[in-house]
Amino acid sequence: MKQINLDKTVELLSARDSFIILTHENPDGDTIGSAFALKKALKKIGKEAICLNEKPIPKKYGFLGKFDDLSLVNNDIDYCIVSVDVADKKLLGNNIEQIFGSRVFLSIDHHLSNRLFAEYSCVDSTSAATCELIFDIITLLDVAFDKEITDCLYTGISTDTGCFRYSNVTSKTLRISADLIDYGADNAEINRKMFETKTKTFAALERLALDSLTLYYEGKLAVIVITADMYVKTGSDESETDAIASLPRQIEGVEVGVMMRQKSDGTFKVSMRGNGMVDVSVICSELGGGGHKSAAGCTVSGSADEVKNVLFKVIEKYL
Amino acid sequence: MKQINLDKTVELLSARDSFIILTHENPDGDTIGSAFALKKALKKIGKEAICLNEKPIPKKYGFLGKFDDLSLVNNDIDYCIVSVDVADKKLLGNNIEQIFGSRVFLSIDHHLSNRLFAEYSCVDSTSAATCELIFDIITLLDVAFDKEITDCLYTGISTDTGCFRYSNVTSKTLRISADLIDYGADNAEINRKMFETKTKTFAALERLALDSLTLYYEGKLAVIVITADMYVKTGSDESETDAIASLPRQIEGVEVGVMMRQKSDGTFKVSMRGNGMVDVSVICSELGGGGHKSAAGCTVSGSADEVKNVLFKVIEKYL
Repeated sequence: MKQINLDKTVELLSARDSFIILTHENPDGDTIGSAFALKKALKKIGKEAICLNEKPIPKKYGFLGKFDDLSLVNNDIDYCIVSVDVADKKLLGNNIEQIFGSRVFLSIDHHLSNRLFAEYSCVDSTSAATCELIFDIITLLDVAFDKEITDCLYTGISTDTGCFRYSNVTSKTLRISADLIDYGADNAEINRKMFETKTKTFAALERLALDSLTLYYEGKLAVIVITADMYVKTGSDESETDAIASLPRQIEGVEVGVMMRQKSDGTFKVSMRGNGMVDVSVICSELGGGGHKSAAGCTVSGSADEVKNVLFKVIEKYL
Repeated sequence: MKQINLDKTVELLSARDSFIILTHENPDGDTIGSAFALKKALKKIGKEAICLNEKPIPKKYGFLGKFDDLSLVNNDIDYCIVSVDVADKKLLGNNIEQIFGSRVFLSIDHHLSNRLFAEYSCVDSTSAATCELIFDIITLLDVAFDKEITDCLYTGISTDTGCFRYSNVTSKTLRISADLIDYGADNAEINRKMFETKTKTFAALERLALDSLTLYYEGKLAVIVITADMYVKTGSDESETDAIASLPRQIEGVEVGVMMRQKSDGTFKVSMRGNGMVDVSVICSELGGGGHKSAAGCTVSGSADEVKNVLFKVIEKYL
């Protein structure tokens, strides 16, 4: 359980030939972009790599490629198992966790809350996205950037920063993105796809979600509830809820924004966003979850009202 | 009417002592940021500078400072008159145009459509914002950047690029912004103010507006109707509708997005947005209005249904 820097990470990667790259469940642009860029870079220097996730890639990110099928894993090969943007092995998804969770060799991540579950962990929480670390790793591996790799990395960085809006953006984030554009990333087209296009099902879900938006504690807390029947009504699915998570916090005066989405197992997945005054990772940690200062999450069981009660008891201490 | 480069611009600025800096009417972040940053830089090297606009600064940009009062102009001083981000002297506003329009010495701008109305014009349409040019000018003037100057320039660049979303963003845009952050710009706070804050009245209006969103012509046309009673219900007003106009077009498959807002005189002001496939300025021209290829408008009298009938008869020809 050693923490290592980028040079050591590159040394470890260089020493091996075959890789399984793991992403987190409910994959977002950063875990997908990191995995696909790293896979492509490793293949360019003659190595084998497979990217795994239990679920299919969300439609939105389909232009970056596909996850590989679990059946591609060859039991005769001694794979180096790498996770990207995964803070906790629990986040690998049940099946993948069961198979690979206890033998992750290298974790490359930017979450402060990384549980250091891998044999080696390269964690830099000052990076806005894991894709920033993958950019550095590919540079150190001396692999030439191409359009495919830069599109993956630009997608990860832009989606994890709300297109450079969030407080996690540093001058390094912008300089790396500038390099990615110079190396071929189609920033205009990716931004159009990621930030200027809504599927009809998402637009319908967003409407229902906004209708549920309620303010509490004199407008300091805003909550959106997405129930299972909203997915049925709109033809939407969980992969489309990410963009909704930031909406409650945008309202003037709101210090904590919450989106609760009902899972099929009766629990609610809670996404919490802070405006800088409240550290939502502290709140989510108390509730058994984790994340960053301004964006964190947890899972709570019960009906919507029961879950709200549980959440409010913790949140009200910090308002 | 000479076109000049940045070096010549800096030479002209260095040779003079007193400046009047003009901005465009309905001032946005780029004209304000350019003017205030240039003024501050010139003052730091011992020169005098006044920033003028007929209107007060919009509340949103108040944190950057204020325009100077016209009464500060001293008729005994031989001012060097500079305009920033002004494509045409008509855009100076009636009063300012009348006084200064014909004697602008230097125009610094990034609009391709700049009319070259000044004695010297430094126009670079590859820059995403005039603030990019001001950044280069301040660098060449060898003035040290400080938080005030960098906040101004970052605000101009971020607002003119939709926070780095639009297709005008280049790697240079991102590198300049990275430098601004290193020199002190509070990007997180500026982004929060510019892009992550909705007034409660706007959020309420947006909800009602989205509830009205309807698709026509197999989803190629999306229409939002804002009726006069929605302003009453939400406490909102017409100044908050601009950001809603772009919502209908964002839906996947939509070629023309329409926002119709009811005016007190019983007409509807129609804002039309195209996705590049349909030239909405042609449609709006047929309806007595006008605009650009992707953003145009017109005014139509009648009830909401009557107005829709009038619009659809023209729009359907182009879908």
